Formats: sequence, C-alpha cells, structure tokens
Amino acid sequence: MNAIEIIQRKRDGGRLSAAEIDWVIDRYTADHLPDYQMSALLMAIFSEGLDAEELAAWTDAMLHSGDTLDFSGVAAPKVDKHSTGGVGDKVSIPLAPMAAACGVAVPMMSGRGLGHTGGTLDKLEAIPGFRTALDPPEFGAILARTGLVLAGQSETLVPADRRLYALRDASGTVESIPLISSSIMSKKLAEGLDGLVLDVKVGRGAFIKDLAAARVLAETMAGIGEAHGVPVKAVLTDMSQPLGRAVGNACELAEGIQVLRGGGPADLLAVTYRLAEEMLLLGGIAAERGEARSRLQKAVASGAAFAKLVEVVEAQGGDPAVIQEPDRLARAPHEQVLAAPRAGYLARVDALDIGVAAARLGAGRERKEDPIDPGVGITLLAKVGDRVEAGQPLAALAWAEEDRRDRALTLLERAFVIADEPVDPPPLIHGEVP
Amino acid sequence: MNAIEIIQRKRDGGRLSAAEIDWVIDRYTADHLPDYQMSALLMAIFSEGLDAEELAAWTDAMLHSGDTLDFSGVAAPKVDKHSTGGVGDKVSIPLAPMAAACGVAVPMMSGRGLGHTGGTLDKLEAIPGFRTALDPPEFGAILARTGLVLAGQSETLVPADRRLYALRDASGTVESIPLISSSIMSKKLAEGLDGLVLDVKVGRGAFIKDLAAARVLAETMAGIGEAHGVPVKAVLTDMSQPLGRAVGNACELAEGIQVLRGGGPADLLAVTYRLAEEMLLLGGIAAERGEARSRLQKAVASGAAFAKLVEVVEAQGGDPAVIQEPDRLARAPHEQVLAAPRAGYLARVDALDIGVAAARLGAGRERKEDPIDPGVGITLLAKVGDRVEAGQPLAALAWAEEDRRDRALTLLERAFVIADEPVDPPPLIHGEVP
Repeated sequence: MNAIEIIQRKRDGGRLSAAEIDWVIDRYTADHLPDYQMSALLMAIFSEGLDAEELAAWTDAMLHSGDTLDFSGVAAPKVDKHSTGGVGDKVSIPLAPMAAACGVAVPMMSGRGLGHTGGTLDKLEAIPGFRTALDPPEFGAILARTGLVLAGQSETLVPADRRLYALRDASGTVESIPLISSSIMSKKLAEGLDGLVLDVKVGRGAFIKDLAAARVLAETMAGIGEAHGVPVKAVLTDMSQPLGRAVGNACELAEGIQVLRGGGPADLLAVTYRLAEEMLLLGGIAAERGEARSRLQKAVASGAAFAKLVEVVEAQGGDPAVIQEPDRLARAPHEQVLAAPRAGYLARVDALDIGVAAARLGAGRERKEDPIDPGVGITLLAKVGDRVEAGQPLAALAWAEEDRRDRALTLLERAFVIADEPVDPPPLIHGEVP
Repeated sequence: MNAIEIIQRKRDGGRLSAAEIDWVIDRYTADHLPDYQMSALLMAIFSEGLDAEELAAWTDAMLHSGDTLDFSGVAAPKVDKHSTGGVGDKVSIPLAPMAAACGVAVPMMSGRGLGHTGGTLDKLEAIPGFRTALDPPEFGAILARTGLVLAGQSETLVPADRRLYALRDASGTVESIPLISSSIMSKKLAEGLDGLVLDVKVGRGAFIKDLAAARVLAETMAGIGEAHGVPVKAVLTDMSQPLGRAVGNACELAEGIQVLRGGGPADLLAVTYRLAEEMLLLGGIAAERGEARSRLQKAVASGAAFAKLVEVVEAQGGDPAVIQEPDRLARAPHEQVLAAPRAGYLARVDALDIGVAAARLGAGRERKEDPIDPGVGITLLAKVGDRVEAGQPLAALAWAEEDRRDRALTLLERAFVIADEPVDPPPLIHGEVP
C-alpha cells in the first residue's frame, strides 16, 4: 500500500477500501505514517467525505487500535448516553442514576470541558475524593456491582482517536461530520454497549449551529452504530441558550442533584426525561415512552435514583455528604448580579457567550492543561421568553478573581438581548433519528 | 495570526489576505510552521483553489523567500522559456542559442528529469565538463558576456519552493493548478525577466492530459506574470507522443544540435521555431511572427546560433568538441530494435510509456537521488500516422544492462498501437494564451 496514492484517491473523490483504511490507521497509530500525510488525508476527507462503508471501516480501525471492553458478564442491558456538548448540559448527572435505578447498566465514559463547553468529568470532580480515572477491571467491577459507573475515557481504549484528535485540532480538520462521528462512535462502541442514546445539540452554544447539519451528524452516527450491530437513538436538542439555570461545575452538579430530588428547571427536566426514556426503550426495560417515563418518575419519587448516585459516588471514593447536602459543595467567595438595562422580553440568552463567560470566570479551559475552579459559575435568573423589568437580575456570577469577573461580565452583558415584543421560547427537542 | 484559523478559512472556501499568505510562507520557510499544518493547508488549496489576488500574493511570498536576480545591467531584453515537461522535449537546446543569436538575453534555469519526463540539465550534462551549478554572480557574468546561460536552479533562489515541492510530493498535493503555477512562476520571476514564454504540454506524456486543464494552467500562469508586470506568452503543445525522435540524454542533445545545424525532425522544428518566435516578439526583437521566423532561420543558416551554443558550452567549462562532433557523445554499448508485429498505420506512440521505458533503461530517475546514464535512450523510427510494414523497425534502444533493457521493452511494446485504417498525426500546437 502507498500512502500518497491513498491520499490522492480520496482527494480526487474516490473510495478507500477497508484494508487501506486499516493500514492507514494502524500505521499512523504505530508512528509509521507521518503527521503531514495524515493531516493531508484528513483535509481530503474533510472536503470529499467518507461513504457509509468507508466510515464503518474507519470507525472499526479506530475501535480496534486499542482495548475494547466486554461486559457480557453483566446481565442487565448496557446503554450509555453521549452528548455532543453544550453549555449548562448537566443531563448525565441525574440521567445516569435514573436509568440505572430502572435496571439499565450504564457504563458511562465522559470527557472534560474545552473551550466554551463543559464536561461531565469536571462537574463530578466537584465531589471531594471522587475518582474518575478507573482502569478497565475497576470500571467493570463497579458497573457489575452498582449498575452504574461514571468515569473518564480509559487510556487504553481507542488510542488512535487521541492521536487523531490532537492532529485534527492542530490542522484545522475538526469540523468534519465523518471524522466527528467516527471519533465519538469508536469510543462508545469500545464500551461494549447494547444500545446508545445520542444527545445531538444544535444552536449557538453547540459545535453544530445548524439543524440540517445536526441531523446529518445524527444519521451518520446512527449508521455507524447500525453497521456495528449497536442500536442508536439520537435526539436533537436545543442549545441556543444554556440548558437549565446553572453554568459551572459545582453549581451544575447541584442542579443535577435537584432533578434526582424531584426538582429542577423545566427545560432540564424535559431533556433529561426524554433521553432517559430512550435509554429504557433501547434497553428493553419499557415498551413505550409513557411506560418508560412512569418508571423513571417512580425511581425519582421513591428516592431510588438519588440513592443510586450516592452509591456510585461512594463506590468511586467520593464524599456522599456533598450529594446529601449540596450546600457543602465549593462556592466562589464573591457574587455579583447582572441587572436588566431595560424592561422587555428576553429574546436571546446566548449559550456561546455564556459558555465563554463561564470559562473566563475559571469554570472552563482554554487549553487542555489549564486548571479549573469548581466553585465559580453563572446562574441564569431569566431565560428566553421571560418578561423582565428594568433593574431585574438576569444572572448571578459566583467569582473569585476580579479580572476574571470583569472579562466575564463584558461577554455576559451582550449575551442577553431584550426585545419589546413578546418572544416564544425555543422548542427543546428539534427532532430525532431514527 | 493563527495557522489553524487560516487553514480553516481556506478549507471553508474563504480568502486569505496577502499578509496571511506572507506569514504562512515565511514561517514555513523558517521552520516555525509544522509540515502537518502546511500539508493540511496545501490540501485545502488543492480543493478550494486560490483566486488571482491570493495567487499573486502566494507567488510573491515564495519569490521573496530567497534571493532574486537583477540583470538590469544587461541591456538586451531578458526572455526565458519554460516547459511544463514532456518526453523527448529537447527544445531548449536549440531554442536558447537561436534566440540569443538574434539578440535576446536568455538567463535559462532548467531542471532535472523526474519520473517519465526528462530534464534539460541532464541532457546538457552529457557534455563532458559542462557545469550547470553556477552561483548568481557567475550566472550573471556569463549572461552579460554571451547573452545566454544554461544553468540549474540556484539554491538561494526561492528556497520556499524546494521545501513546499518536497512536501507536496509526499502529501499528495502536487496536481493543483495554483500550486503548480506559483511554483513555476516564482522561480521564473526570480530570474528578473522582461518576458517569459511558456510551453504548456498536453497529453499522455505531460502531467496535464487534458486540453481544458492545460488552458487553465496557462491562463493562471499568465495571470501571475501580469500581476508581477512580466508579459507571458503560453503555447499549448502536443505531448501525446514524444517530441522529435530521440528520448534520452546524449541522444536528445545530439538531436537538438541537429536543429542548430539546419536539420532535425519536422515536429521538433515546428515547436522550437514557434516558441523562439514568441521569445523574439516578447523581447521586441521582431514585430510579428514572420519577421521573427526569418531572423531565426538566418541565425541558423549563418551558423550564428550554433556558434552561440559552442560559446556558452565553453563559458560553462564544457568540451566543445562533442558539440562539433556529436558522435563523440556517450552512447550505450548495445542496441536492440523493436519491430512492428504487423502492417498498418501507427495510431499511438504513447509518450508516457516511452518516457517510463527510457527511465527504466537508465535515462531517468525514479527518485531524485538516482544516478542517470547519459548514453542510454530510445530512438523512434516511426511516429503517429506513419504507414508501417510487418517487421519494420519502430524504435531502436541503446542499452547497457540486460534487465533494464527487458523492463523497458515490455513497456515499449505496448506503447506502439497499429491500426488498419490511416490515422492523422495529432496537431502540434493546440492553442495559445493570450
């Protein structure tokens, strides 16, 4: 095989065979294909795409670049949920225990926040002592014991993705539907799942702003799942404004716990229940959505879902006291309120600006190696469609450093747009695949 | 400036500013931009192109990556000819002395053969002692003295092109019209010319097989010349079969000398005179083509053109005896004839196959570092349109090593296609720009 010939064929719109794709990924992972050839191939794929067969082969080659997990010893159906990332997206925190309490085994591997989006790992690490770096045997043991495990991506799973992602990031080839899809799906397929629910975020605060593109991404990922015999359900959800009210780490964890206690903001509840219902349906725990919802509601009302979170926090070395009493979570020392400059209706609460503002406060990272501050964050006190009066608080900032607060405030001020006429809130669910 | 943002903009079909292009080329030449970012950008350019302004800026940045020549001390108009490369293309050897004998100053920098195409430098180096590696002061001194200099590309001119070309070769981004155009034009513009004639080869033995693409390439290069104030005339010439009869190094040099002696095959004469006429027109030596042709014919008939070649060979340390008596040039020890398998009309004499066959004999290189043998080569004894009888010789091979001969013969046999019906020879000139 010849790397240049493979690059040229893709560049000219041709197809690559499964054997060629295997060869390219294997050689790249083994350091035998130089970065400059791989980045040229990635750019050719960016421009010419991969068809369904090529994409299945590409994902398969990535998937088999390292270990894969086998939970065939766990009798319960294994279903995970993956979100393409957004602002205020703490859905996993209530959803995973809710689904687990209903009998789904949830082997959840999450990521960290980068740029304006948060990451579930960072939120979980607001729990003192909670360990997210688990090796595969411990990961499997906790899953078998509690039906739920909340960890980071294991280093030994899909090493090709780590290398490819770093190269894509440095070579301007991140925003490619086939490359995004294969990156996500190779990691999820390595978890040995029986089903996967995808939360494909759409809007200003998502990396895909456009509904048509989000649908293509959802269909592409579902197609990869199908090619690997894993049923996938994708739900397209709104990310034009942040989900829920809290944007940060400790504060998002606390809001997630509220949902398990039977509270929480309506939009967060709607998205969490919808995705959890799909997990129960894929896992065969319920036959239709109404039944799934009623099981989930019972698991919350009975305290079983909350108890499941406590159980997994203890299993992973965390302090359950902060789950029982979220007021004990880290909280930045200062608070500042942003007031409405005039009366009207909130027409925009820009998820991207708010995500970047939270990152500037210290809740997120500009670079992978940046530290984060679990106690800082933004609480939204009004959302799109709300009537506001002049001087009414729109948001509260929990801050620790003055210059960070000032940099966040600049963005936050422009994130809120007030109109004279009433505005409808955006729909929460934009579609589903299939 | 940010490399990733620049790559992303081009990838998404956007425009790069002249400042951004300068920055990218400067940083790459200074080793501050990694190969994997440049190869991704090259692939994005391959797919999205460069508009006229971007292309002028890209060429300008390459041009200014090293020294440029200044022959303002030479009073005669400085005009060069560049060919995009073909098989049997020895045009430069008679053309440069012919134009110089008519009063054009010809500062010709040529390349070496690679793959199936030959290079003027390799042909000239069949002259014992002839030095093609001249530094800029010596290059200028010879030009000033003889009105003609035949050398290789100076190391200090356009260093960015050497690095970029190697990367394009290794990353599958060679065949891009803007990248090819800027590579050629940056080197030619660095010569400080008053005019440039381009021989854009079209057909199986050229790197552009298709007339429409060749026209785009010609127009693109002419546009770059215009943007830099250098008039360009491009002639699109046939490369479906080799030009002339000789394919090799010493044998092509000898065929070029034949033209200066008033002989030579008709197709080689036609292309050489046409291109030389354009040089005289661009140099203001003649007002129209008929006048230019008659000056050129006189320069050949009087022996002035031949004397100019002898003069430059002596100036560059070569042995003029081989020019006076080309039989003294290197000649491989063995000869073998390929006979027509049946009677008919020659319908194809495939330039690509014959170019590769000559390279296999040892006349060309597969890799840049391969040595070549000046004495081996192929002489075509029949060309497209010729009537041939069964057993009639089609080509003669001068060979040195048996296994090379056998590998060449395999290809040569399939290069000749005989038809039952008469066939018209292809037109020699397919068009001109402007």
